[in-house]
Amino acid sequence: MITLTSDFGSPYPAAMKGVMLRRTDAQLVDIAHDLPRQDPRAAAFWLRETIPYFPPAVHLAVVDPGVGTDRRAITIRVGDHALVGPDNGLLRPVVRRLRESVPEIEPTVVAYEIVVDDPESATFHGRDVFAPAAAEVHAAGVDSIETVDTLTSLSLTDCVDLTLPTATRDGETIRGEVLVVDDFGNAITNIPGEWLDDFEAAVIDGDRVPVVDTFASVDPGERLLTTGSHGYVECDVNQGRGDDAFGLSAGASVTITPTEAD
Amino acid sequence: MITLTSDFGSPYPAAMKGVMLRRTDAQLVDIAHDLPRQDPRAAAFWLRETIPYFPPAVHLAVVDPGVGTDRRAITIRVGDHALVGPDNGLLRPVVRRLRESVPEIEPTVVAYEIVVDDPESATFHGRDVFAPAAAEVHAAGVDSIETVDTLTSLSLTDCVDLTLPTATRDGETIRGEVLVVDDFGNAITNIPGEWLDDFEAAVIDGDRVPVVDTFASVDPGERLLTTGSHGYVECDVNQGRGDDAFGLSAGASVTITPTEAD
Amino acid sequence: MITLTSDFGSPYPAAMKGVMLRRTDAQLVDIAHDLPRQDPRAAAFWLRETIPYFPPAVHLAVVDPGVGTDRRAITIRVGDHALVGPDNGLLRPVVRRLRESVPEIEPTVVAYEIVVDDPESATFHGRDVFAPAAAEVHAAGVDSIETVDTLTSLSLTDCVDLTLPTATRDGETIRGEVLVVDDFGNAITNIPGEWLDDFEAAVIDGDRVPVVDTFASVDPGERLLTTGSHGYVECDVNQGRGDDAFGLSAGASVTITPTEAD
Repeated sequence: MITLTSDFGSPYPAAMKGVMLRRTDAQLVDIAHDLPRQDPRAAAFWLRETIPYFPPAVHLAVVDPGVGTDRRAITIRVGDHALVGPDNGLLRPVVRRLRESVPEIEPTVVAYEIVVDDPESATFHGRDVFAPAAAEVHAAGVDSIETVDTLTSLSLTDCVDLTLPTATRDGETIRGEVLVVDDFGNAITNIPGEWLDDFEAAVIDGDRVPVVDTFASVDPGERLLTTGSHGYVECDVNQGRGDDAFGLSAGASVTITPTEAD
Repeated sequence: MITLTSDFGSPYPAAMKGVMLRRTDAQLVDIAHDLPRQDPRAAAFWLRETIPYFPPAVHLAVVDPGVGTDRRAITIRVGDHALVGPDNGLLRPVVRRLRESVPEIEPTVVAYEIVVDDPESATFHGRDVFAPAAAEVHAAGVDSIETVDTLTSLSLTDCVDLTLPTATRDGETIRGEVLVVDDFGNAITNIPGEWLDDFEAAVIDGDRVPVVDTFASVDPGERLLTTGSHGYVECDVNQGRGDDAFGLSAGASVTITPTEAD
Repeated sequence: MITLTSDFGSPYPAAMKGVMLRRTDAQLVDIAHDLPRQDPRAAAFWLRETIPYFPPAVHLAVVDPGVGTDRRAITIRVGDHALVGPDNGLLRPVVRRLRESVPEIEPTVVAYEIVVDDPESATFHGRDVFAPAAAEVHAAGVDSIETVDTLTSLSLTDCVDLTLPTATRDGETIRGEVLVVDDFGNAITNIPGEWLDDFEAAVIDGDRVPVVDTFASVDPGERLLTTGSHGYVECDVNQGRGDDAFGLSAGASVTITPTEAD
């Protein structure tokens, strides 16, 4: 199985699929191709929150503002998974998550540089560099990844890192950040849901907003704070857009003070 | 084969796919993930009009404004098909359609409640409740659905029903309703196409509009009434949007009086 | 393998998939369903630039403003590939490209009309005419395409042709045209990239714009000319939309005079 993630929109992912299907008969599964454009941080979040639900696979992920520069193309093996993409950090959070998810077996984590001499284009390495590499890793098998000709060993510590920010608590005040806004307009923060577990409401930007378990706990159009499916506090609206109602976008700071209900 | 239908946009469907592919090697086929948000009626229409074209399969369908409340999660078997989704009625019209499509063999129709204790999230039952159930039904086989551990028998009559409205005729006056507006802007009504079969035009909202077999029968930009691919009268524009030109949206009433051409 | 290309948006492609999966167990791969509406020329470009990356397959392509009129439905075999779609020219450029790509083996090129009496609808031949034909060709095998009942021989020269315009050079002045604008807003012209190979800049619409190898060669928000992944000159903006910045849309004329950098 090969999963595909990019900010390519349509129809560019199809050329990557063709390239891979000429080299392997892998099942292809799209994760998303409409991720925020040229934003490796948002892609890092979605990869981290999505790939761990998959069985062992090769994961092709291309959000690559530096395409055509001398940034590296890399592959990272983590146990039975292999991740393929540009060396701009977008693969690092999911590598950590996959590693932590099975600490008892200490999964193999090995990095490789993908070396392709003179790719067909300078602007579409998804098609010309990453897709061929993903297909070759799949064809060889992740546990024989070292046999793939176009890969040369690399130290993971030499790869670009990217860490998603973490929230902090200072007395009763929680300070976090919006990591991404999803398709529903839910503003997903980096505040762990359990920090609000014992509270019925919280003050955000001067307003008291209910802390609830589910959207339907408030009337349609009303604001709410809840623990989303990723385990983080989300600023949402029942049947509406939280980003608009709270005035939040990706990267925005969020200060929350848990409190009792009115 | 498992088909997927939702209003989840992107990239949430990918987590459902990962969950299913960990449990079964089913072929996954997307029907749509951009259905009108939190609108079980629109989803019911599209499921009814699309699923009957598929071979026997498990069909996962999640448009679920009540997620996290005590609404049931259900599975309905209809012959060789199984439908999995929330108990808000969205599965009922396609169940009736599948049943009617092979009346001679009286397909087995059985309902089950999906019982999952303490799902991982309260807001993403697509991933935590429905996808696991669909995968388990697929792995067991639809004709052995009763062996799936998480299913308990349920009377179909105890499930929430949802019926799409039907059009009426009173003398020459036809009264119907727009069921959905499709991606092209075609306003699809519930008026059977054959009710206009012998007419060359109809008066709608005071204007005489031609009744034609195909878009290209009128000039680009011109309004038309035609029998769409679902068998219903559509209010369309050749190479344009019928919803804008007729001022119609989903749920709008439509009154049509068939007439002769000018 | 069957690839699917259309301007149908969602969820209409799903009905085509169901129809095909009732007749064959082919792997289905979406190329795109959001191509510019009712624009066979844009579709012809994307098919030509995408399908050659695929292994031998059946390719279903439906952008069909003449649906329901007496335009033919056709299938064209080119070597190990078969193309299925309306006879409006959209298949011709990719047929030429596939043929040229292996001139040494002179691939078989044969055309057939698809004859379906009384299709279920007059407006959705993707579902009722083209999908069944694609599935039947796949089931028979491309090299036994002549055994498919619904196909009757046709001369390729009797099919509608469509040629994408070519750019011209007159002294130092290059005159071309924008063929398509992609999802990123890149305005892709028909000017061969090598015509700008030795230049560092070009004057377009009175302004001097750098000719570079990659987006990151200019600052974010700055305009650039580069050779895109299809081999043509593109009018782009680093991390922005070239169509807006250059004031270009599909079909627009582009006059470029290569020059030295400032």
